[in-house]
Amino acid sequence: MAKQASDAKKKRIKERDAKTLGKIVTLAGDVPKKAYLGREPIIPIPIRARSNTLWNKKRGILEMGDNKADRQLFNLNQAKQYMQTLLHSASVKELIDAEKTLSLRGMFYKGLHTIAGTASEKTFGAQDDSDAILEDLEVAIGALREELHIYAKKRGTMVGNITIIDNGDEIDCRRMGTGGYAIPGIVEPDVIEFKKCEAKFVLHVEKDTVWGRFNEDRFWEKHNCILTEGSGQPTRGVRRLLRRLNQELKLPIICVLDCDPWGHYIYSVIKQGSISLAFESERLAIPDAKFLGIRAKDYDECELSDDVKIMLTDTDKKRAGEIMNYPWFKDHKGWQKEIGLMLKNGFKMEVESLITKDISYITEEYVPQRLKKQDWLD
Amino acid sequence: MAKQASDAKKKRIKERDAKTLGKIVTLAGDVPKKAYLGREPIIPIPIRARSNTLWNKKRGILEMGDNKADRQLFNLNQAKQYMQTLLHSASVKELIDAEKTLSLRGMFYKGLHTIAGTASEKTFGAQDDSDAILEDLEVAIGALREELHIYAKKRGTMVGNITIIDNGDEIDCRRMGTGGYAIPGIVEPDVIEFKKCEAKFVLHVEKDTVWGRFNEDRFWEKHNCILTEGSGQPTRGVRRLLRRLNQELKLPIICVLDCDPWGHYIYSVIKQGSISLAFESERLAIPDAKFLGIRAKDYDECELSDDVKIMLTDTDKKRAGEIMNYPWFKDHKGWQKEIGLMLKNGFKMEVESLITKDISYITEEYVPQRLKKQDWLD
Repeated sequence: MAKQASDAKKKRIKERDAKTLGKIVTLAGDVPKKAYLGREPIIPIPIRARSNTLWNKKRGILEMGDNKADRQLFNLNQAKQYMQTLLHSASVKELIDAEKTLSLRGMFYKGLHTIAGTASEKTFGAQDDSDAILEDLEVAIGALREELHIYAKKRGTMVGNITIIDNGDEIDCRRMGTGGYAIPGIVEPDVIEFKKCEAKFVLHVEKDTVWGRFNEDRFWEKHNCILTEGSGQPTRGVRRLLRRLNQELKLPIICVLDCDPWGHYIYSVIKQGSISLAFESERLAIPDAKFLGIRAKDYDECELSDDVKIMLTDTDKKRAGEIMNYPWFKDHKGWQKEIGLMLKNGFKMEVESLITKDISYITEEYVPQRLKKQDWLD
Repeated sequence: MAKQASDAKKKRIKERDAKTLGKIVTLAGDVPKKAYLGREPIIPIPIRARSNTLWNKKRGILEMGDNKADRQLFNLNQAKQYMQTLLHSASVKELIDAEKTLSLRGMFYKGLHTIAGTASEKTFGAQDDSDAILEDLEVAIGALREELHIYAKKRGTMVGNITIIDNGDEIDCRRMGTGGYAIPGIVEPDVIEFKKCEAKFVLHVEKDTVWGRFNEDRFWEKHNCILTEGSGQPTRGVRRLLRRLNQELKLPIICVLDCDPWGHYIYSVIKQGSISLAFESERLAIPDAKFLGIRAKDYDECELSDDVKIMLTDTDKKRAGEIMNYPWFKDHKGWQKEIGLMLKNGFKMEVESLITKDISYITEEYVPQRLKKQDWLD
């Protein structure tokens, strides 16, 4: 594979971009078309809210429902958003034409200007407005953010028994030292290709410091896996990469997160998707992702000391109750028991708490034993 | 270079570890020694505070002064901290013996236990206590955190015309795709070696999204440089790496940060060091680091629109005044003018604001022109 993307890949990107451009041109072309017909231009926008989020039990993912709201030009409450939508559409067209990408912040600035004929009325008041319009655009034309040439924050790292091609560069994740390969914001097949992979599974940990422990102990080498971290709630890029590793390479995704509502929520998002990105679940969610630990039973099973206990706050307890009632946790005996035991314990535990046993207890005993027994929640 | 560290390198690490161990053993050995002599064991700890921070004008860095406070065992207010210091010393010895490293959080857990003979009195109340003791230990025995086998948070990315060896793995930063090489928390010569470098300078940007723009436009290839980002205030690892690139490879470090007090402060820390880490300035600060932009004059010079203006808050103005009065900014005409103009303007500007001109204005016009004219503050 040469440094430059192969011709076949270039063709693929061109086709993808042409498709997105087509959708944008259709959206924009509707305005004069309707105008000539003497009718009001309207953009139907699917509703991104809990009320329009459905739990697809069979597929094991959250999905966006069919409800839409019309965005009207001739409606004082909606005219601004209508224009913002078209403004961002124009920017996206420009990005695609220029073969460039921008961050969310960049898009905000790109669309920012004082509206002609006003003293100081701006196109966008703040980045939040701009971000929301971009999500509207994603769902309205059914194009992923990456297809709009917009990238999310870059965060998270990878090492392990896999070689990938990133934008034509071959990256051997077995030779990435202590630092690792930084997972980019866009990991679609036209940017990231999987080349050679011996790994049998992916171990995903919540924090970079825990990742450091596993990498230093060369866990991925000893257990033939890929090691990733998301520095907290994983970004779209990390989730999409995990999903691709799971779907295309058939690798189980095994998570090591804290035993607290935040850890449970991170797992839930990795597995079923989130409400705000329900329209993306199909390409982000990993219904068979596994939660290996930390488990509420570990306090007894691993004979931990009282020092690892961090008492649950009222907010924690409330949050745990909410998560227990998520439809996908509600019918899951294992998870009901897990969260129930955490509430009964009255305390949460962090992954790092296993250090109280031994520096490498987690890499040499805990995770290997659980893997062997397939002792996880899924 | 083989995958495993060379024998010479191993020897170097062994020598370094032996030296640190020696210091710890001396510290701990002092306790029984003093006890047998019937004298009180005391650990003198250099004071880490503004009052003991000196501005070394000649060297251009912040330094820690000579003031010390005695940490006494037979003092009710200090006994706990005294014991905490010895506890962490023991943990560090264990880490060095095991040839392993731990995060700050990990060290907290490692040292955490209920004190024998008490119902629930813990060795550390919270991680903050533990972190502070570790900094005390660093200054007390004059060993860097890395020498204590403790690593800081990993953050920041690098690409560009350089090949490095990270723990025996050769990493070609010219072939790191869109993701890049994740800069580790420890970048000392025994972990990271510089192999082949054609780059003539380092361009350091504040944000990963801006870094993405520069990498996508292959700025580092066109301008023969190394491109780094610190995701905000750079970590010790990033600062240390920049410092090593500057000192060992004689590369100028050129920063592109926001035109606001936070951007100015980041630059100040990169250049002169910080009060809290003044004892580390010698190996972290880069006195000849340059601030290329964004400059207060850019609003006029780049003919930017009013839309890029973000009004200064009262906090911003207060902070700007404080920074203006830093001894190293106080005598610097360029910086007095710079901050003065920002205050006169009444607004701040972000790096991304240049996108209002054109998507790649920053990579194709702004930075190249400023580099050519050597138009920067230093």
